[in-house]
Amino acid sequence: MSKSNESAEDRLIARYFRPLATAPGAFGLIDDAAALTPPPGCDLVLTTDGVIAGVHFFPNDPPAMVGRKVLRMNLSDLAAKGAKPLGFLLSVALPAGNDEAWLAPFTAGLAEDAARYGCPLYGGDTDHTPGPISASIFAFGAVPKGKMVHRSTARPGDHIVVTGTVGDAAIGLQLRRDRALARRWGLSAAAAAELEARYLLPQPRNALAEAILQYASAAIDVSDGLAGDLAKLCRASSVAADIDVARAPLSHAARAVIAAEPALLETALTGGDDYEIALALAPEKLAAFGAAADAAGVAMTEIGLAQTGEGVRFHRDGKALTFARASYSHF
Amino acid sequence: MSKSNESAEDRLIARYFRPLATAPGAFGLIDDAAALTPPPGCDLVLTTDGVIAGVHFFPNDPPAMVGRKVLRMNLSDLAAKGAKPLGFLLSVALPAGNDEAWLAPFTAGLAEDAARYGCPLYGGDTDHTPGPISASIFAFGAVPKGKMVHRSTARPGDHIVVTGTVGDAAIGLQLRRDRALARRWGLSAAAAAELEARYLLPQPRNALAEAILQYASAAIDVSDGLAGDLAKLCRASSVAADIDVARAPLSHAARAVIAAEPALLETALTGGDDYEIALALAPEKLAAFGAAADAAGVAMTEIGLAQTGEGVRFHRDGKALTFARASYSHF
Repeated sequence: MSKSNESAEDRLIARYFRPLATAPGAFGLIDDAAALTPPPGCDLVLTTDGVIAGVHFFPNDPPAMVGRKVLRMNLSDLAAKGAKPLGFLLSVALPAGNDEAWLAPFTAGLAEDAARYGCPLYGGDTDHTPGPISASIFAFGAVPKGKMVHRSTARPGDHIVVTGTVGDAAIGLQLRRDRALARRWGLSAAAAAELEARYLLPQPRNALAEAILQYASAAIDVSDGLAGDLAKLCRASSVAADIDVARAPLSHAARAVIAAEPALLETALTGGDDYEIALALAPEKLAAFGAAADAAGVAMTEIGLAQTGEGVRFHRDGKALTFARASYSHF
Repeated sequence: MSKSNESAEDRLIARYFRPLATAPGAFGLIDDAAALTPPPGCDLVLTTDGVIAGVHFFPNDPPAMVGRKVLRMNLSDLAAKGAKPLGFLLSVALPAGNDEAWLAPFTAGLAEDAARYGCPLYGGDTDHTPGPISASIFAFGAVPKGKMVHRSTARPGDHIVVTGTVGDAAIGLQLRRDRALARRWGLSAAAAAELEARYLLPQPRNALAEAILQYASAAIDVSDGLAGDLAKLCRASSVAADIDVARAPLSHAARAVIAAEPALLETALTGGDDYEIALALAPEKLAAFGAAADAAGVAMTEIGLAQTGEGVRFHRDGKALTFARASYSHF
């Protein structure tokens, strides 16, 4: 614990954080708190997620990417609930000594995505820590009152759909740890870079939030692996699901890796950091959601059906698949 | 990074956090996010503050007190803005191994104060960290639309008032570090315990939030020392202030310490963790605020006057006092 000139933190705030605080209710970060006038007729959707160096990112990852990733992790939660982003608060802890060298690119990355997703900074808290760098975000969005999309409301007969592609980030993480794998897997440099990029920088599906709000029976952010997150959705909804693994959406790069090392199919289906959305759609909503996904330029793939009963059954070519662990967890 | 059985975190959430999630919009913590229906006609007031072991609390402080303190730090910010607490999100990082031994009392303490202050848990994020235990809270409250009390709106001629007593926590922190000081200062065991308790467990002034909303021209949470926080209020308001140090509210215990060691007056006025509120009151509002403080059972003391100009001038018996550092900062 140390006494320091109060203007040190003030100066950092003014220089690096104030430019992100574009909302009127952030008051330029000069107050103890921010004020948010909720959009009329809306509920607020609230979520929090964070990252710790050495746990959720590599200490030598570019700080700009860390800033963008932690915001996008939260944006993905909002998208899955059908919510439009309104803003966020940030809590950062970093070792004393090189604050500015890290904060300058970190906040530049955050600023870029805050503008891109229309999600300005409302306030925050900055501390020195004897531990690793960490950053937590509290994000808030809006949905029409009572309309937040839940994970607990899938119905038997719903189609199970997933956005984008799964498994790229989990395979990208393996490459990030051991780049020699690219050669063993026969990957081109471009394909390896694509997989690593999916680990480094999620592509949250906020462009689909309105369609999810309009059409989905239920939805969940796929951040801990498709298999585990589908299991959570089905358990919360008291439904079973049959999933055809052959239809799971895989990128060309992921397919090439799995062709070279078939055991990595399990990694692709149970690894974390996809930041896609799994949703349940009543049969009559499937076409409309598909059209909305086309319009947003996001792939969507129907991979199975919700049923009465419980448990998620994965099968391929008529044979059941089981996984050692269905889900990825940092805890 | 490790894979683990998904039910380990789920079990912790169900056992320790779900009992705090009493609001309907928390959905029993089974979803990715929470929903909050804003009170009609209100703005939301948003704030975040957190603690790190070894920085903001001692690693061997009782976890129940750490839980209560981190919530109360945020409640104090809401009180200073005139806001009624609505709820909070929590982000906790702790070393692997003894999760339950720490989380059980931590969440018990949080639960006690969540109930006491009407501020339920809406969601959270739990991670393992190679670093020290840390906990951040994102708290939200409500004020009538456009009525958040700012720190930037004090006017020349306003009385400067502070709630409760200042300096106890800063002196309590010194005792917590070196208990032999109690003897040197001639403190009774009860007085020493009282000072340490003020460091360990803030007494946020939420009982005065409505009166602050109704009467204050401006207000600030006193968490970084009275001198520094008054300076922030005056700078943000573009006013000066004359403060009579002889009128600064000190507990009997703090007075005894300062009598034994006069240099500690500066500690009392510039140390952190008071969690009192400094406010500016137009002369015609002083009596009404005083009556409200009496009704709430919280002391309030008029210590000076806002003026045109800039800077906070502290004086005692007609002599100016200057401080080496006006403010306490963990950064």
